[in-house]
Amino acid sequence: MGEYKIAVIQGDGIGPEVTQEAIKILNVVGEKFHHNFTFEYALAGGSAIDACGECLPKETLNICKTADGVILGAVGGPKWDNVPNAQRPEKALLGLRSELGLFSNLRPAKIYDALADACPLKAEIVAGGLDILIVRELTGGIYFGERGYREGKYGEEAYDVETYSEVEIRRILKNAFEVAMQREKRVCCVDKANVLETSRLWRKVAEEIKNEYPEVVLSYMYVDNAAMQLVRNPKQFDVIVTSNMFGDILSDEASMITGSIGLLPSASLGDSSHGMYEPIHGSAPDIAGQNKANPIAAILSAGMMLKYSFHLEKESEAIENAVKAVLEQGLRTPDIYSQGTTLLGTKEMGEAIAEHI
Amino acid sequence: MGEYKIAVIQGDGIGPEVTQEAIKILNVVGEKFHHNFTFEYALAGGSAIDACGECLPKETLNICKTADGVILGAVGGPKWDNVPNAQRPEKALLGLRSELGLFSNLRPAKIYDALADACPLKAEIVAGGLDILIVRELTGGIYFGERGYREGKYGEEAYDVETYSEVEIRRILKNAFEVAMQREKRVCCVDKANVLETSRLWRKVAEEIKNEYPEVVLSYMYVDNAAMQLVRNPKQFDVIVTSNMFGDILSDEASMITGSIGLLPSASLGDSSHGMYEPIHGSAPDIAGQNKANPIAAILSAGMMLKYSFHLEKESEAIENAVKAVLEQGLRTPDIYSQGTTLLGTKEMGEAIAEHI
Ligand SMILES: CC(C)[C@H](C(=O)O)[C@@H](O)C(=O)O
Ligand SMILES: CC(C)[C@H](C(=O)O)[C@@H](O)C(=O)O
Repeated sequence: MGEYKIAVIQGDGIGPEVTQEAIKILNVVGEKFHHNFTFEYALAGGSAIDACGECLPKETLNICKTADGVILGAVGGPKWDNVPNAQRPEKALLGLRSELGLFSNLRPAKIYDALADACPLKAEIVAGGLDILIVRELTGGIYFGERGYREGKYGEEAYDVETYSEVEIRRILKNAFEVAMQREKRVCCVDKANVLETSRLWRKVAEEIKNEYPEVVLSYMYVDNAAMQLVRNPKQFDVIVTSNMFGDILSDEASMITGSIGLLPSASLGDSSHGMYEPIHGSAPDIAGQNKANPIAAILSAGMMLKYSFHLEKESEAIENAVKAVLEQGLRTPDIYSQGTTLLGTKEMGEAIAEHI
Repeated sequence: MGEYKIAVIQGDGIGPEVTQEAIKILNVVGEKFHHNFTFEYALAGGSAIDACGECLPKETLNICKTADGVILGAVGGPKWDNVPNAQRPEKALLGLRSELGLFSNLRPAKIYDALADACPLKAEIVAGGLDILIVRELTGGIYFGERGYREGKYGEEAYDVETYSEVEIRRILKNAFEVAMQREKRVCCVDKANVLETSRLWRKVAEEIKNEYPEVVLSYMYVDNAAMQLVRNPKQFDVIVTSNMFGDILSDEASMITGSIGLLPSASLGDSSHGMYEPIHGSAPDIAGQNKANPIAAILSAGMMLKYSFHLEKESEAIENAVKAVLEQGLRTPDIYSQGTTLLGTKEMGEAIAEHI
């Protein structure tokens, strides 16, 4: 029996709807496994701009910092396209990551048997399923280096600095090796070491760390090749670990390869077990409020929270299995509907999953 | 009747074999259309390291600078994995690009009807063919900014600087708009403007240039989304223009999506009509010297030279059509062989194409 305080950032567009279903599932899990989950709501993104003129209010940071875990729906939308740069909804995400110290982003790219047909790759390429975990560094690199204007060879030039220290590289690589130990024990470090100094430092640190994990097989791949291999033969990968920028690109490519972006969760973790959990899909303002959004990614994100922040393995598995069960039953939201399956709304999908817990 | 001096860098691995077939085709084109192509050989990459201890000898640069065009096979291979960084075969490529001022890399990603089956994407996604042109900036960005070590927040840190001036951005964007005018007149500028200052400068310059090309439709896309869209619906793109680093990643992803990497050529252009032309495939040392390599990418690269450096449109088309013809005839090198087609070696493929000129 545990007590867990969860911060909830519903966000924009379909964020509130899908988050509600995640909360529904957490409540059912709480009842069944005798845990007490309490929820504290906080604003970030567009809705925070509307309510208080800033995308990431201090109050939100306080709520998140004192919670045991954070779930987030989705932020942003065309409504806020013209707000000044410093207050764009995306800035809320970047702010949450750095303020909460969430340096490790876990992005599973997985194909569910029942949805194998949705994969854009030919069936023979992904035969037998696909299960990659991308570990993206989240608080360093060119995202957080200094940027601006300066004098250059051709007059004034814009610049952005990519930086990585050994400390930052070591902690994310350790994270990747740790998760690999619970999987197929293969880590592929993706970089551009034939060009970048930062990449060469990643390799140096990786060579040290691999000695601490003799069971794990470490390989290196250039990012251009990795972008190709994800299309040619994604099954060769177990865990991919990479920088913030390369991780942004490759994790989205890998998600799309599954064909089921509405199902994919993500976890952003730091040194403590605190973490932030969110679907990888966007806020989809075009279908917001219509009971059409797929709540599965949000629900699986809650499942990741149970596993990574609360160490409730059994409970997390119960959620995963319930999702698998409804998919096998042929229940579908519009984004994954195909002939011969049963169409459900956001709420009904949440209820169907709840029944399987 | 024209006189053209061509510098030939055969390079490593399969480079010499495929380059020989390109030369064979150029000679046939020369006879048929009454041009005189002369060839001057130069060393770069691994073979230059072996011969004179440096990957890009001055002599090579001289030969290239005084030629009307440069054709290159492929450079690199595991044999040179342990040479010091400054002399790695890749450095020859980077050196040639910057010394010859080749700021614009044209990378077509095209599916030939006869090879549509080789595409890793489901048939319905690429139905009716695929023809994207990626215009990659090639002499700026994080490839050529300063890099090294410095003191940072967590002690010593490695850094790499991405820089772009308006001059550099303007010339590559203009290039993209120009080629788009000869195609479907759609340019998609791919960046990460929600994070990078350099990207925001690209957008500012693009907004200016688009006024000079009222017929061209300009759109913007974030690089993470572009990596997804290339898998989900590549046919939405006509011309993609982007930075050196993003172009490296996306052009390789786009190539792989065609399923026919052994067929894809590339052109690297500068301010003058001088240019360097090379297959996008690597040096494939495992099959070198066995008459197994596919010469089509090298041959099509020579075709691009005729078009972009010598403005010989008819002659360039003759090469493209000859390639199409042999593919439709079912002639195949091992990399694209499938049951029911006819297997040929490198030389025989070159001869078959020559016969169709
Ligand atoms: C919104 C944007 C800044 C963000 C990123 O690039 O990190 C997003 O693409 C993501 O991956 O969460
Ligand atoms: C070899 C390497 C430096 C090069 C690059 O990144 O530009 C290669 O990947 C390419 O695309 O030509």
